[in-house]
Amino acid sequence: MHTVFVTGAAGFIGSNLIDRLLVDGISVVGWDNFCTGQERFLESAQKNPHFKLVRGDNLDLPALTAAMKGCDFVFHFAANADVRFGTEHPKKDLEQNTIATFNVLEAMRANGIKRIGFSSTGSCYGEAAVIPTPEAAPFPIQTSLYGASKIAGEGLISAYGEGFGFEGYIFRFVSILGERYTHGHVFDFYKQLVEHPGHLKVLGNGTQRKSYLYVQDCVDAILHVTRLGTAAAAKHRTQIYNLGTAEYVQVNDSIRFICGALRLQPEIRYTGGDRGWIGDNPFIFLDTKKIQDTGWKPKLSIEQGIVKTLRWLEANRWVYETRH
Amino acid sequence: MHTVFVTGAAGFIGSNLIDRLLVDGISVVGWDNFCTGQERFLESAQKNPHFKLVRGDNLDLPALTAAMKGCDFVFHFAANADVRFGTEHPKKDLEQNTIATFNVLEAMRANGIKRIGFSSTGSCYGEAAVIPTPEAAPFPIQTSLYGASKIAGEGLISAYGEGFGFEGYIFRFVSILGERYTHGHVFDFYKQLVEHPGHLKVLGNGTQRKSYLYVQDCVDAILHVTRLGTAAAAKHRTQIYNLGTAEYVQVNDSIRFICGALRLQPEIRYTGGDRGWIGDNPFIFLDTKKIQDTGWKPKLSIEQGIVKTLRWLEANRWVYETRH
Repeated sequence: MHTVFVTGAAGFIGSNLIDRLLVDGISVVGWDNFCTGQERFLESAQKNPHFKLVRGDNLDLPALTAAMKGCDFVFHFAANADVRFGTEHPKKDLEQNTIATFNVLEAMRANGIKRIGFSSTGSCYGEAAVIPTPEAAPFPIQTSLYGASKIAGEGLISAYGEGFGFEGYIFRFVSILGERYTHGHVFDFYKQLVEHPGHLKVLGNGTQRKSYLYVQDCVDAILHVTRLGTAAAAKHRTQIYNLGTAEYVQVNDSIRFICGALRLQPEIRYTGGDRGWIGDNPFIFLDTKKIQDTGWKPKLSIEQGIVKTLRWLEANRWVYETRH
Repeated sequence: MHTVFVTGAAGFIGSNLIDRLLVDGISVVGWDNFCTGQERFLESAQKNPHFKLVRGDNLDLPALTAAMKGCDFVFHFAANADVRFGTEHPKKDLEQNTIATFNVLEAMRANGIKRIGFSSTGSCYGEAAVIPTPEAAPFPIQTSLYGASKIAGEGLISAYGEGFGFEGYIFRFVSILGERYTHGHVFDFYKQLVEHPGHLKVLGNGTQRKSYLYVQDCVDAILHVTRLGTAAAAKHRTQIYNLGTAEYVQVNDSIRFICGALRLQPEIRYTGGDRGWIGDNPFIFLDTKKIQDTGWKPKLSIEQGIVKTLRWLEANRWVYETRH
């Protein structure tokens, strides 16, 4: 890994990964269309001579191919990461996730680059039949357009592994929290509590159980695994890892952590039902034994991650003023 | 099911399904771009006043939407069904399978049609960890661009089930044989034996184990299951069924059936290796208990299906003169 290409460079996870790669002395070409990415997330990277930013869209294959020239590893993190509003614009997941991933792979092929890391999602397990859910869980039924588009991307990467000798690292994330987090329940709850500290509207009944992982732990895991490489004897060139902590919390636990950290006691108003929205999965908890067996483990608990996120949001209220 | 829309109408399975629907008194709108479809496969249907043929491509969403008007069920069978040469043109599977399926779903949504039958594939299990492979097999790693594109289509259909209340019937086929079969090993072997009866070139070492299903049994199964409908209490609106026989054969068995039926004793020349091509799966055998439990079972054995196919090819040598 000498010169790394990162799609979604100005996004939450992409920008945190880039900062880490630069610290490690690796050259980085960042690629972003700034549709949801934030210039300010790259302020530190931009000061580093080993970082180059290229503005462009994954649907523009010629530009993508040109930008990737000279790189030897691609982290493909650009995505429409909105699981909740998929049904409002089904084409977005198809274009920005499925077709975008195809273009990234084709650009790699044109450049002779064969190693890729990919941000997939625990949502691809649908409503998992086995919890905690291992990587080899029963063949799932997709319940969201987001999950379906990520599974399409995973399939492409593994087929390129088999057909073109690509080496793929697929990470199925739980929800990620931490510095530069710009959407999700902590984001929404903090916004509400700034606007009206006396009450909090909660989608569903608060008993939905979810897993979260702190972004620096996430970046640690990704770099740890990709540096291990793939054994020559491996059956597949594609390695798939769940990423999460060995715990989960209820939405109500999270509310308690948030209100405790903010020293607030709002009235909680539940919208009712056992899920927040159509396609919301009331219980996400991934089995992370496979990645833990490689020697990685998270440093922060979910509660610590939530509090870190809150502190960052408090210090960066500007993110609420931007498109996200 | 009153007026049914069939994509891939002039294809192998589509045209056989249409003939059966028309016999059952159902009106059919057939849709095909005639890229691989054959006009002659619709000769019988064209004589029926309840059949209407519309020429068009699944990538043309406005035309597709217009053609679908007034239908109440869609069988989406159009596909690039070429599993072997996927790496020669990766974009074909993306466009003709993944994007095409998205367009079919969007055309349905625009027309208020919510019931869809879809031809998927046993290839989506990759190299299955469990054989015979059940529908809930361990989450597979894709080994072909074809399998990856079908899994993308399945994911879209089930996400539309969850998000838009669609009722989906997904059929994971083994290889289908019978009247109007125009590609696969029987097609290739018969062609060789017509050209040079004294020898037969076989990809791999002949021990690859595969499953086949006779096309009329396939059509029976599809209509049987879609007519059962989905129980209101079902967890998912999407039903997935493996389709195949309860047996498999080696390529060498198939050669024996073919040579026996043709009364030939060619010298067999193996290219070697345990698989026919990159991404070829040396053992495909699906667990078909789920569909058999609904009351369907195949009428023909694999051997009978192979012989039927051969007889049809003998009587329809014109298929070797056309593009396929």
